[in-house]
Amino acid sequence: MIDTLHRGLLKLRHNKAFEFFVIAVIIVSALEIGAKTYDLSPTSLLIAKYLDVFITVFFLLEISIRFITEEDKKRFFHSGWNVFDTVVVVISLIPIDDSEMALLARLIRIFRVLRMISIVPELRVLINSLFIALPRLGYVVLLMFIIFYIYAAVGSFLFSEINPVLWGNIAISMLTLFRVMTFEDWTDIQYETMEVYPMSWVFYMTFIFFTAFAFLNMVIGIVVGVMEEEHTREREEKRKELEKNQPTLVDLQAQIAALSEQIKQLK
Amino acid sequence: MIDTLHRGLLKLRHNKAFEFFVIAVIIVSALEIGAKTYDLSPTSLLIAKYLDVFITVFFLLEISIRFITEEDKKRFFHSGWNVFDTVVVVISLIPIDDSEMALLARLIRIFRVLRMISIVPELRVLINSLFIALPRLGYVVLLMFIIFYIYAAVGSFLFSEINPVLWGNIAISMLTLFRVMTFEDWTDIQYETMEVYPMSWVFYMTFIFFTAFAFLNMVIGIVVGVMEEEHTREREEKRKELEKNQPTLVDLQAQIAALSEQIKQLK
Amino acid sequence: MIDTLHRGLLKLRHNKAFEFFVIAVIIVSALEIGAKTYDLSPTSLLIAKYLDVFITVFFLLEISIRFITEEDKKRFFHSGWNVFDTVVVVISLIPIDDSEMALLARLIRIFRVLRMISIVPELRVLINSLFIALPRLGYVVLLMFIIFYIYAAVGSFLFSEINPVLWGNIAISMLTLFRVMTFEDWTDIQYETMEVYPMSWVFYMTFIFFTAFAFLNMVIGIVVGVMEEEHTREREEKRKELEKNQPTLVDLQAQIAALSEQIKQLK
Amino acid sequence: MIDTLHRGLLKLRHNKAFEFFVIAVIIVSALEIGAKTYDLSPTSLLIAKYLDVFITVFFLLEISIRFITEEDKKRFFHSGWNVFDTVVVVISLIPIDDSEMALLARLIRIFRVLRMISIVPELRVLINSLFIALPRLGYVVLLMFIIFYIYAAVGSFLFSEINPVLWGNIAISMLTLFRVMTFEDWTDIQYETMEVYPMSWVFYMTFIFFTAFAFLNMVIGIVVGVMEEEHTREREEKRKELEKNQPTLVDLQAQIAALSEQIKQLK
Repeated sequence: MIDTLHRGLLKLRHNKAFEFFVIAVIIVSALEIGAKTYDLSPTSLLIAKYLDVFITVFFLLEISIRFITEEDKKRFFHSGWNVFDTVVVVISLIPIDDSEMALLARLIRIFRVLRMISIVPELRVLINSLFIALPRLGYVVLLMFIIFYIYAAVGSFLFSEINPVLWGNIAISMLTLFRVMTFEDWTDIQYETMEVYPMSWVFYMTFIFFTAFAFLNMVIGIVVGVMEEEHTREREEKRKELEKNQPTLVDLQAQIAALSEQIKQLK
Repeated sequence: MIDTLHRGLLKLRHNKAFEFFVIAVIIVSALEIGAKTYDLSPTSLLIAKYLDVFITVFFLLEISIRFITEEDKKRFFHSGWNVFDTVVVVISLIPIDDSEMALLARLIRIFRVLRMISIVPELRVLINSLFIALPRLGYVVLLMFIIFYIYAAVGSFLFSEINPVLWGNIAISMLTLFRVMTFEDWTDIQYETMEVYPMSWVFYMTFIFFTAFAFLNMVIGIVVGVMEEEHTREREEKRKELEKNQPTLVDLQAQIAALSEQIKQLK
Repeated sequence: MIDTLHRGLLKLRHNKAFEFFVIAVIIVSALEIGAKTYDLSPTSLLIAKYLDVFITVFFLLEISIRFITEEDKKRFFHSGWNVFDTVVVVISLIPIDDSEMALLARLIRIFRVLRMISIVPELRVLINSLFIALPRLGYVVLLMFIIFYIYAAVGSFLFSEINPVLWGNIAISMLTLFRVMTFEDWTDIQYETMEVYPMSWVFYMTFIFFTAFAFLNMVIGIVVGVMEEEHTREREEKRKELEKNQPTLVDLQAQIAALSEQIKQLK
Repeated sequence: MIDTLHRGLLKLRHNKAFEFFVIAVIIVSALEIGAKTYDLSPTSLLIAKYLDVFITVFFLLEISIRFITEEDKKRFFHSGWNVFDTVVVVISLIPIDDSEMALLARLIRIFRVLRMISIVPELRVLINSLFIALPRLGYVVLLMFIIFYIYAAVGSFLFSEINPVLWGNIAISMLTLFRVMTFEDWTDIQYETMEVYPMSWVFYMTFIFFTAFAFLNMVIGIVVGVMEEEHTREREEKRKELEKNQPTLVDLQAQIAALSEQIKQLK
């Protein structure tokens, strides 16, 4: 009997209609979260509450089906997406009472929207490609951090008495420098320090040059590099495919050598 | 007699001078719309009124000619540009009286300027290339929307009491996040929430990282990808063209095999 | 005797020291223009005046030498750079008196700095590459203009009574839209119109999407396209160079055919 | 005995644990600099002081070991990174007293963080690639400077009386133009001058076009160019590698010619 149930669940899991229903429930859960940010009537709040229970139970069932129908139970948790789904669903199970944890529980419930990414394969590919690019960007980020750290230290030493709100310590200075990097009212900051150190524009100019510019340079470089690599790989594969069905120059050489042997035997 | 008229219209349609006259009328209609945004003397207003009637009638005639001279009437409306032209012209026919619809009618009249795109082939190519890129961008836009939605929900839950104008509900929050993405006075928003939640800079930093950066990454990737594909295709075609006139290695192999046969017969 | 002078000038023109002296004079003229923006002592002003006369005369001499030593006088003015140099030098000859033209004459004198570009070949290449890219960008610019025009007309119709300083007529509206495109305090403009038309964020969102985004898309595409083309061309040339020194498959085929003939004669 | 010491140092230098210890000390020195930007208790200040002495001595030892174990002493200073390390360490040796030099000494101590780049090879590669791109960018920077200089001169002549704080002299004008280039409150500057010269938007528009746009164009072009070159080089190498192990068409031709000789001898 368990076997019949197992096969039934397997059938259900690969059912197109079931897949669309899962997506629909995720969308409904997203809309519910959005609706909660508005002032709701008591009736709506009650509906939202029951809807929440339904969504939680449904997600629990869906993940259970996925786990039961998985042949290799160990491999189930090897996939980061499965782990993510399970964690989100399990945390949703924690009951919300009007304690301090309520806000946190509400926030985690929002991450259920991210399940959309784990369901739609095309979105998963996009996120994966971002993760693949990350290690390549790791050293660029480290370099950026060193540049930020040095400029923040210099800024903090020189300007902390001019405006402690912006340059009070190295952490605040790094936040201020991030603001400068986004060009957000950066001249106000510059004009303020230029009144004390008239040459301080050099500080901002070199910082903007090193970050905005060098950064752009490297990021574009890396992206183009990744693209190029993929296309080179594709082209290479296509070329091999093409050559497989064609005789190579080595084959021709062997054939000609065989001819030479034949002629020798004629003598 | 109808046949003679038909041939006359066909001749007219492919007449270069007629084409330029159509473009000229579109430019005049654009200038008329521009002129209407200035305070005009009563005389000018009267001229504008008659001009408007002339343009409407002329466009009606032009599209009629295009429709009559089209051999396959059904295919006429298969082209999105023809449908667009017809809709714009037909709506222009609705008379403007000083009713509530007047503003709408005036707005739709502005879209007559878009006929410039449907007339000039090079502009049509540009717009088409944009539409071709859109489906590829579809999933990126969906991903962006999910990121926006989640951050807007979090922002709305946490900050709605700090500043309801910016974070009142999820819709307003998404607008505020779009503002943050364009770096428009985003630090003002950040400093405000940092007074209550000192760690809220993490919210903005990660949001900026995920949108501005990841977005850029993906868009560049897609554009470069599209370009690469086209060029690979072109190169492939050129290569095939080149190889068509050249003997392949297969031909050579066959020739050598024939030689071998000849030598065998010698024995 | 004229012939000796001619040869002397030709020698002078191609003299490396003379070339560097010309560049030095251009730099001095640039510094002089920069110095004039400061409050100068009467002595400095006098020096600047004599320096100005010297630079004007020197440039006149230099361009005369270039013209005299040019073999084909007609071709001299075929080069845009020569025409530009001549125009700048000739206009510098107009005497400055404290009339209304003084400001204009001073402004034109500034363009003498541009002679740096016409002298240094690497800068000329950069500017030329910009001009080569322009016609390709022509239609993108036209499309951008149409988008701007339509949005400016709509903006002017809807918002002119909300804020006539920003949306008074179509010209002012286009300037305001350019400001929106650079994300410069665009939310202030948006919040103002949203008070009357709460849905007007659609106007700004779509405008930003169409310009900033579509524009970026196309520009990157074009730049990558230009680059690709050049590199494809280079690779093609390299390939041809390589193949020139190598026997082609056609040659091999001919050789094998000759072999076949030889064997036939054996029979 | 010196020989034994020498070998001991050589062993130490290439010891993985020692390398990680050096990195750890650099990180500690960075943290110490960061900590100093906060208000510290007297105890912490004392610890920081002793830590500073330790770091200085350790860096001196480390660079000495690197110098002693280097076989060719002259080549040691050929590497820019070694020179940089030595200069930073030597300047750190200068004692800080509460004189005017104290601030400078503190600032230079910050540059010890840059030693992270000279230690981690991946970061060194990133910086090197930036330096390699710089000469290519040299002329673009010169062109940008000329554009800035001309616009600053024009701006200074026309607007210096409207707002001397922004357009007082050519240096201030260039700073203002840099601000315009980053789109930072540029419309405020524009609206101010448009009150006197209503056509001055042309000044800003053309400036933004020439810098932001042309600059982007060229930078992207150069980056893509660099990338392409590298990949073409790699592909070329791969192709050569591939062809090395394959017979060329020349080999085949020689073989066929040998066949022909054999057949001739049959006659």
